[in-house]
Amino acid sequence: MTMYKAPLRDIRFVTEELLDYPSHYQQFDQGKEATPDIINAILEEGARFCEEVLAPLNRAGDEEGCRLEGHDVKTPEGFRNAYQQYIDNGWSAMSQPEEMGGQGLPESLGIMVNEMMAEANWAWNMYPGLSHGATATLTRHGTEQQKKTYLQPLISGQWTGTMCLTESHCGSDLGLLKTKAIPKEDGSYRLEGSKIFISSGEHDLSDNIIHIVLARLPDAPAGTKGISLFLVPKFLVDQQGQTGERNKVYCGSLEKKMGIHGNATCVLNFEEATGFLIGPANKGLSCMFTFMNFARLGTGLQGLAHSEIAWQNAWRYTRERKQGRLLSELDQPDAKTRLLTEHADVRRMLLTIKVFTEGNRALYYYICKQADLFLYASDEAVRQHAEQLMEFLTPICKAFMTETALESATLGIQCFGGHGYIREYGMEQNLRDARIATIYEGTTYIQSLDLLGRKVLLTQGELLRKFTKIIHKFCKQHENNESIKTYIDKLSALNKLWGDLSLAIGMKALEDREETGAAAYDYMMLSGYICLAWVWADMARVASEKLAENSADATFYTQKKEAAQFYYARILPRVEMHKHAIESGIASLSLSVD
Amino acid sequence: MTMYKAPLRDIRFVTEELLDYPSHYQQFDQGKEATPDIINAILEEGARFCEEVLAPLNRAGDEEGCRLEGHDVKTPEGFRNAYQQYIDNGWSAMSQPEEMGGQGLPESLGIMVNEMMAEANWAWNMYPGLSHGATATLTRHGTEQQKKTYLQPLISGQWTGTMCLTESHCGSDLGLLKTKAIPKEDGSYRLEGSKIFISSGEHDLSDNIIHIVLARLPDAPAGTKGISLFLVPKFLVDQQGQTGERNKVYCGSLEKKMGIHGNATCVLNFEEATGFLIGPANKGLSCMFTFMNFARLGTGLQGLAHSEIAWQNAWRYTRERKQGRLLSELDQPDAKTRLLTEHADVRRMLLTIKVFTEGNRALYYYICKQADLFLYASDEAVRQHAEQLMEFLTPICKAFMTETALESATLGIQCFGGHGYIREYGMEQNLRDARIATIYEGTTYIQSLDLLGRKVLLTQGELLRKFTKIIHKFCKQHENNESIKTYIDKLSALNKLWGDLSLAIGMKALEDREETGAAAYDYMMLSGYICLAWVWADMARVASEKLAENSADATFYTQKKEAAQFYYARILPRVEMHKHAIESGIASLSLSVD
Repeated sequence: MTMYKAPLRDIRFVTEELLDYPSHYQQFDQGKEATPDIINAILEEGARFCEEVLAPLNRAGDEEGCRLEGHDVKTPEGFRNAYQQYIDNGWSAMSQPEEMGGQGLPESLGIMVNEMMAEANWAWNMYPGLSHGATATLTRHGTEQQKKTYLQPLISGQWTGTMCLTESHCGSDLGLLKTKAIPKEDGSYRLEGSKIFISSGEHDLSDNIIHIVLARLPDAPAGTKGISLFLVPKFLVDQQGQTGERNKVYCGSLEKKMGIHGNATCVLNFEEATGFLIGPANKGLSCMFTFMNFARLGTGLQGLAHSEIAWQNAWRYTRERKQGRLLSELDQPDAKTRLLTEHADVRRMLLTIKVFTEGNRALYYYICKQADLFLYASDEAVRQHAEQLMEFLTPICKAFMTETALESATLGIQCFGGHGYIREYGMEQNLRDARIATIYEGTTYIQSLDLLGRKVLLTQGELLRKFTKIIHKFCKQHENNESIKTYIDKLSALNKLWGDLSLAIGMKALEDREETGAAAYDYMMLSGYICLAWVWADMARVASEKLAENSADATFYTQKKEAAQFYYARILPRVEMHKHAIESGIASLSLSVD
Repeated sequence: MTMYKAPLRDIRFVTEELLDYPSHYQQFDQGKEATPDIINAILEEGARFCEEVLAPLNRAGDEEGCRLEGHDVKTPEGFRNAYQQYIDNGWSAMSQPEEMGGQGLPESLGIMVNEMMAEANWAWNMYPGLSHGATATLTRHGTEQQKKTYLQPLISGQWTGTMCLTESHCGSDLGLLKTKAIPKEDGSYRLEGSKIFISSGEHDLSDNIIHIVLARLPDAPAGTKGISLFLVPKFLVDQQGQTGERNKVYCGSLEKKMGIHGNATCVLNFEEATGFLIGPANKGLSCMFTFMNFARLGTGLQGLAHSEIAWQNAWRYTRERKQGRLLSELDQPDAKTRLLTEHADVRRMLLTIKVFTEGNRALYYYICKQADLFLYASDEAVRQHAEQLMEFLTPICKAFMTETALESATLGIQCFGGHGYIREYGMEQNLRDARIATIYEGTTYIQSLDLLGRKVLLTQGELLRKFTKIIHKFCKQHENNESIKTYIDKLSALNKLWGDLSLAIGMKALEDREETGAAAYDYMMLSGYICLAWVWADMARVASEKLAENSADATFYTQKKEAAQFYYARILPRVEMHKHAIESGIASLSLSVD
C-alpha cells in the first residue's frame, strides 16, 4: 500500500530556487556538465528507478529479510536484480572522476539521486551506500597499489565496501577494541577477532566485499592511539585485479533486529584473515574518520528519507480519508464528514512532519554545496571554508535529522490512526527502519559531544562563528523584507543566543568538563532548530517572491509560507526549553547508584 | 534477555508512603480486609506470577504471534496455560463482590496486580483486560437476566469479553458505523456487519467470548444518536447458563501489526449472528462509555507499563556496562573505562524515563483512589467528587501516559545503543508494543478534545477547578516547607497558568470553535506536565521527610529527590513550549490543499 513518489518538486525548489545550484555548478569544472537539461534527465531517470524498481521491494525486503546459509547471505528476492540495474545504469559511478570510470558529475547531484534511493528502500540502499565511504577512505589514505587494485571495481559497484568498527564489548568506545592484526612476512597482516553490527557485511549482490577494519598491531599502545586501519577483501585479489582465494573472514550470524530487515547486519569473524594496512600504523582512527564522516552524512540522509516517507504517505492518506465533523459543526445533525486534513490536530501533525522534512532537505543540500566546494573549488580558501562548515554541520546533520526523523515517523503512524499500526500501510516499517538512525555511526550523544566539545569549544567557537556569520549576513540582508520580517527578528535573536550560550557553557566547562556532557544533547537540538529557523526563513522569502511574481504552483509556495509560519510559531519555542535544560547544567543530572 | 522484576518497592512507596492507602482502605467496607498483611501477600504472590509465569512468555509471544486456523485462533505457546493459572489463582475475581464469586477486595488493589501483569506481558494481559470493561458494562447497563447469565463466568475469567466498535471506514468517528441489528421475533437481534481491530476478538484461552458490539437498528437515526449496544456471545447460552450452539460471529483474519503480536487483533464478521440489546435502543454510545472509560484507564496503565519496562531494563543495563571515559579524564591515558551511568547524557535519558514512570505511577494510583471512593464511599458527595476527578483525569491518564511511554520506550532503546535495536534485549519490542497505545481506545487527539472540550470548557472550568483546588491546597499547606519550596513556587504559578490558559482558550473558542482543536493536544500535554509537577513535588516532600528520619533505603529516597530536581529543571520547561503553541492558535495551523 505504500507508494513512493520521488519528491522532485521539492528537490528542485531547494536546489534551483533556494540554493541556486545552476550558478553554483558553473563555478567548477565538474559542474560544467551539470546543465539544467542533464540534471533534469538524471533526476527523472533516478526517480523512475526508485519508484519502479526499488520502492516495490521495500516491504517485501522487510518481510522476507536476509538468510544465512553456511557462510553465505541471501538477500531478499529482487535485491540482486535491482543492484545489477543500479550498476548497469551507471548510478554507482555518477559522481566519480571519469578517469576512474565515473561520469565526472558533481557529488551533490549524486546525492540527489541517493536521496531518492534512500527514501525508496533504505535497507537496499545501505549495500551500495557503504561503498562510497570505502572509496573515499581508499582515495585519501590508500597506497597507489591499493587504489589501483580496489578503487575501480568499488566505484563501478562491481564490489561493495563495509566499515568494521564495533565489537561486542565496544561500540561508542573504540579504544576498547581487541581485534588483532599480526604482521606477516609478505607485508600483509593476519587479522583475528570478531566484529558485530556490520551492515552489508556479507551478501550476494556483488562479486567481492572490501572490508575496512579497525584492529590493533601487536605492539600498539592501549586506547584509541593504538588502532590501525586495514583492508580485508572477502576474496583476495591478485596483481592483475582478478579475485581468487576466499579470505578467512566469515559471517558468523545475522542479527535479528527491529527493522532494516533487508540489510544483512552481520557478526563477522576474522579467522586469520589476510589484511593490508591502510595509512600509517596506529593512526587508523583518524583515517577511519574519512569513512565515518561520509557515513554520518549518509545517516543524516536516512533521517531525511524517513521524514519524507512519513510526510508523503500521511499527506496522501489524510487528504483522502474522511472522518469526523468540524468542531464548529458538531451541533448540526447534517454536517458533512470531513477530510482528516480539515481537523486542526491532523494539520499540526502534518505540518510538524513537513517542516522537518523540507527544512532538513534544505539544510542537507546546503551541506552538499559545501561538499562540492570542498572537493572541486580551485581556491584553497574556499575549499577550507567549505570544509569547516561541513565539519561543523556534520554532527547536526547526523543527530538532528535522525532525531527529528523519529518524531516524523511516529507522527506518520499517528496520522493513519489504527491503520498506521498495521504492516500493510508501511508506516510502522518506516518507524522500525528509522529507529536505528540515532544509534549507528555514532549515537546522538556522540554527535552532540562532537559538535559541542570538538567543533565548538575546542575551536574556541571559531567554527560556530563561521556559521553564525552566514546567518547574521542573511538577517542583515533581509531585515527590511516585510514578508519575513518577524522571522528575521527572531532568527537574529536566536543567532546571538547561540553564541552567548556556547560561551556560557565554555566557561562552565572550564570548571567542570562534565558540564559539556550535561549540555551536549540539548545544545545539539537547539543548534538544529536554529539551523532550520534559518532555512525556513529563507524558504519563506523565496516563496513570497514567487507568489509576488504570480508564478505557477501558487499552492506549493503558499504551503511553504504556511509551514514557515507553523515552524516559527509552534516548533521554534523548543529552543527555549533546550536553553533551560542547558542552563540547569550537570547539577540537575544527579542519579545516585546504590 | 529481558528480565522482569515487579517494582514492588515503588508501588509501596506510592500507595503506602505517598498516598496513604492504609488509611484510605479503612474508610469503606470493601477496604477493611485489605490489611497490610493481606496486601503484602497479594503483591508478593502477584509479583511471583508475573515474574515467573507471564514475563517468560513475553518475547516468545512476540516471535510466535497468533495463528488463524479456520475460524479458530491459536494463541502463542504457554498463553493458555498461564491463563488457566490466572483463573485458578483467583486473580480475575479479586476486586469483584463476594456474592459474584469474587474476593471483595478493593478495585485499587486489583490494579496493583494488574500493573504488574501489564508490565510482564502486555499482549497476554489484553485477554483478561477487556473482560473487566465488559463486566462493568453489563453490571451497569445489562438486564437482570443478562447479569445472571453472563456476569459470573466473566468475573471468574471462565469467559472473556471484547469491545467491538471500529469498522474499516470508521475509527474515531463512530457516527459512521454501518453494522446492522435487525429485530427477531424472540426479542433478540440478527447482527450483520464487519468490525476490525478487535483485540482478543477470537482466541483459545476461554470457553466463551462475550462480544459487546455497537450496531444500528433498522429505523435508527443517522450519526451517533442512532447507535445501540449489543451482547453477542461466541457460543449461545441457555437459561441454565450452559453454552450451546456456535453463534455466527467469526474471525475473518488476523491483522499483521507492528507489535502486541501475542494478542489476536481480529476482523470479526457478524454473519446473522444473534445478539441481545444492552441498555436502551439508540443509547448505545453512552452505555459504551462505561466500557471505554475502563479501557482508557487500562491503556494509561499500558503506558505506565512500557515506561517501567524501559526504566528497569535501561537502569540495569547502564549500571553494568562500561563504555567510555569521563570527559574530565580524556587526557589521562590510564583513565578508567566508566559505567554508562557515569556519563551525563545517559543519566539525562535514565532520569527522563524515571520521572515519567514514577510520576505516572503516582498519578495513576491517585486516580485509583478516586475509583475506590467512587465505587465504595457511602457519602454521595464523596462519590460524586471522586467521579468528577476521574472524569477529568481519565483523558490525561490515557493520552499523557501513553505519549510519554513512547518517549520512555524510544529512550530505553537509546540507552542500550546498538543492542537496543536487536530483538534479544527486548527494548525494541517494548517500543513496538507501546506504539499502539496513543492510537487505540481513542487517539491522543480524541482524548485531548475530551479533556479540553468536554471536561474543561463544557463544564465552564468546573472540573478543572476541582483539581486545581487540590493542587492549590497542597501548595498552601507546604509553602513553608524548605525541602520543596522552589517546587511549590513553580507549581503554584503553573496551577494559576493552567486556569488562565483555559479561560483564554475558552474565550477564543467562542469566536471560532476550531480554536479548541488547535489547542487540544498541547493543552493535554501541558496538563499532564502540571499533574506530574504536583506528584513530583509531593514525592520529594515524602522523600525528604524519610531522609530526615534516617529511614532505611536512603538511596531510594535520594533518587526520588534527584528525580524531582531533574523533573523541575529539565522536563517542566516543556510547559512553556506548549503554552506558546496554544497561544499561537488556529492561525498557525494553515495548510492549503490544492
